[in-house]
Amino acid sequence: MQAAVMRQGALVIDDVPDPTPGPGQLLVRTLACGICGSDLHTLAHPEVWVEMAEESATAVPDGMPAPKMMDITRDVVMGHEFSAEVLAVGENVGNAKPGDVVVSMPITFDPGGIHPIGYSNDYPGGYAEQMILSDLLSLAVPNGLDPHLAALTEPMAVGLHAVNASVVKAGDAAIVLGCGPVGLAVIAALTILGAETIVAADFSPTRRALATVMGAHVVVDPATTAPIDAWREADGRRPLTVFEAVGAPGVLDQAMRMAPRLAQVVVVGVCMQPDTISPMRAVTKELSLRFVFGYDPTEFAQSLERIADGRLDVAPLVTARVPISGVPQAFRDLGDPEAHAKILVVPGA
Amino acid sequence: MQAAVMRQGALVIDDVPDPTPGPGQLLVRTLACGICGSDLHTLAHPEVWVEMAEESATAVPDGMPAPKMMDITRDVVMGHEFSAEVLAVGENVGNAKPGDVVVSMPITFDPGGIHPIGYSNDYPGGYAEQMILSDLLSLAVPNGLDPHLAALTEPMAVGLHAVNASVVKAGDAAIVLGCGPVGLAVIAALTILGAETIVAADFSPTRRALATVMGAHVVVDPATTAPIDAWREADGRRPLTVFEAVGAPGVLDQAMRMAPRLAQVVVVGVCMQPDTISPMRAVTKELSLRFVFGYDPTEFAQSLERIADGRLDVAPLVTARVPISGVPQAFRDLGDPEAHAKILVVPGA
Repeated sequence: MQAAVMRQGALVIDDVPDPTPGPGQLLVRTLACGICGSDLHTLAHPEVWVEMAEESATAVPDGMPAPKMMDITRDVVMGHEFSAEVLAVGENVGNAKPGDVVVSMPITFDPGGIHPIGYSNDYPGGYAEQMILSDLLSLAVPNGLDPHLAALTEPMAVGLHAVNASVVKAGDAAIVLGCGPVGLAVIAALTILGAETIVAADFSPTRRALATVMGAHVVVDPATTAPIDAWREADGRRPLTVFEAVGAPGVLDQAMRMAPRLAQVVVVGVCMQPDTISPMRAVTKELSLRFVFGYDPTEFAQSLERIADGRLDVAPLVTARVPISGVPQAFRDLGDPEAHAKILVVPGA
Repeated sequence: MQAAVMRQGALVIDDVPDPTPGPGQLLVRTLACGICGSDLHTLAHPEVWVEMAEESATAVPDGMPAPKMMDITRDVVMGHEFSAEVLAVGENVGNAKPGDVVVSMPITFDPGGIHPIGYSNDYPGGYAEQMILSDLLSLAVPNGLDPHLAALTEPMAVGLHAVNASVVKAGDAAIVLGCGPVGLAVIAALTILGAETIVAADFSPTRRALATVMGAHVVVDPATTAPIDAWREADGRRPLTVFEAVGAPGVLDQAMRMAPRLAQVVVVGVCMQPDTISPMRAVTKELSLRFVFGYDPTEFAQSLERIADGRLDVAPLVTARVPISGVPQAFRDLGDPEAHAKILVVPGA
C-alpha cells in the first residue's frame, strides 16, 4: 500500500507491506488523517521524541505495560488523528464489521504489548492507505457525520482534557495563548463549558479569526496588545486561568508573568526544549501550574459525540485536504501559521 | 536603642531611634527573633528582594493596598520571626497591656498603609531591642510557653501553609528536598497531618538528624541515595507529593524528574534566580506544580497553638542564641548548613 514514510529523518512516498489484523484487531482503510504538530516536531527532532517517549514509559502506573518504543532508524508511518472504514476483522472481534466507519484512540494491543499507532515500526498510522486498529478501542462514527470531521475527534479531545484538568468552571475567565489546533481545541472546550470571558492570543490573523469561530469573546494580536490588558478591559474580575498552547521556549514564563495571584496556568503546548522560568515570581503569586497531555477514553468518546451532535463545529478548522503524495509538501506548508489550521490527509483525494 | 542595621549592603550594629506606637499599635521589647534565610538572601541581593516585592505588590487582590516597599538605600532593621513583651500601648488599643508576651504576623498598619515589619524603613524588625506591632494582629503567647520557642511560630506557619496548600492527606507519602528551617517546618506539618511515609533529603547530617526529630520516617543523603529510590524501598505505593524546600537553581527540575505521573510538586523554597525546567517531561507525566508563599492569619495562629500545646516541639531547631551584636557573625555562620538550623537573636543575651 502507499504511505508517507518517515525514513532517515525525511518523509518519502513509498509502498509498504499491507498490514494484517491479528486477534481482536481490525484492518481499516484510512478515510482522513489530520497532520499534528507533534508529527512535525518528531520529523525535525526524532531524538527528542524518543527521549520523551522513554520518560513517558517510566511514568506508566505500576502493573501497566509501557508502550513499545519506535526505532527511529527504521521506517515509521506517522498519523494518529484519523477516521477509517473497516475492511476486514481478525479473530475474536465482537463489534465491528466491514463497512463500519470508526475512529479510535491511536493505540493498539497485541501479544507483544501496547503500540502507539503512528509512532510505531509495526503499526502504520493514517498517512498510509490502511491501518490496524483494536476492536475494543474503536468507536463507530454516528450515522451521517462526515468522516473528515470525525478525524478531528483526537485533537479536540486534547483540548477537552486540558479544560477538564483545569480549575475553570462555567462563568470563569480564561486566556488562551496560541490558536493553533491545540489552542483552538481548548477554546472550543471552554466555550462548551460556558467559560467567559475567553481571551485568545495569536500573531496570525487567520488563527485569530478561527478563535472567534470557536467561541473566543476577545482575540488579540500579542504583538500589539498584551492579552492580560485585553482581559482587564473586557472583564478583569472573574477567576482567570491562563492556557499555554504555544509550546515554545519563553511562553510559559510569559503566562506566569500575566497570571494573577493564586491563578492556575495550564500547560498544554509541548515545549520540547528546556525552558527558563522565574520561580520567585511564581512563589510570590502562589501560582499553580498544571501540565496536561493526551486524554482518557471517556474524553475521546465525548469529543466524538460533541462533533457528531453539532455542539462542536470543526469544519472551519480544516484548511486543506491532500493525498498521501502531498504529505511532504503539507508538512512544509504547516510551517507557515498564516496559511493553515488543520490539513487532512485523504488517501486517494 | 541598639539594632543590627542593614546599611549599604552590610550589617552594622548601631543605635537607632526608639520607636513610638501610634493608634492601635503596641510598643514591644523583642524577646527573641529567628534569623530567616530570606534575610540572608536580602542582605546578599537586596535588588532581587525589591524586584520580588514589587512583583508581589502587583499581585495584591483588587481593593487591597499594597505593602509599602522598603528603600534599600536607607537603613533597614530586619527580623520577622519574633516574640516580644508589651511595654506600652497607643491609643485605641483594646486587648494588649504592658507585660503581655505576644507574637504577631510581621505586618503593621498605620494611616500611611501596610508595612512589612523587618523589611521596612519605618518599622524595625526583631534585630532591634524594640518594635511596633499592631494590636489587632498580635496573639498572646499562652501561659507558660517559652518565648524563645514562640518565636518559631512564623517559620512553622510557612511549613503548615505549604502542607495545607498541597494535596497531601493523612496516609499519603511525601518527599521533602532540603531540611533547612523551611523543610523542617514542612516535615513537622506533614507529621501532625499523619502523612506517611515521609522521606527527607539533605546533604547535612545535622539537618538529617533534625528531620528525624521532626518526624521524617526515612532520611537520605542525596549524594549517595536518590530520594525517590528511598521512597520506593520504604513505600512506593501511596500517593506521593514532592516538596522543594531548597530554593536553589536546578532543584525544581530534580523534583520534577523524580515525581511520579500525575504527582504534585510543591515549591516552598524561594529560588531567586531564573531556573530551567523541562516542560516536556512535566507534560508527559502531567505534573502539577504548586508554588506557595507565607501563610494566612489562621495558619499563623494554629502554628502558635501547636507549639504551645506540645504537639510541635521546636526546641531542637534552636541551635544557637546570640545578642544583637552577634547578628553579623550569625549571618556568616548560617552559611554553613552543617552548623545550624535556627539561630535566635536574643537582645541582652
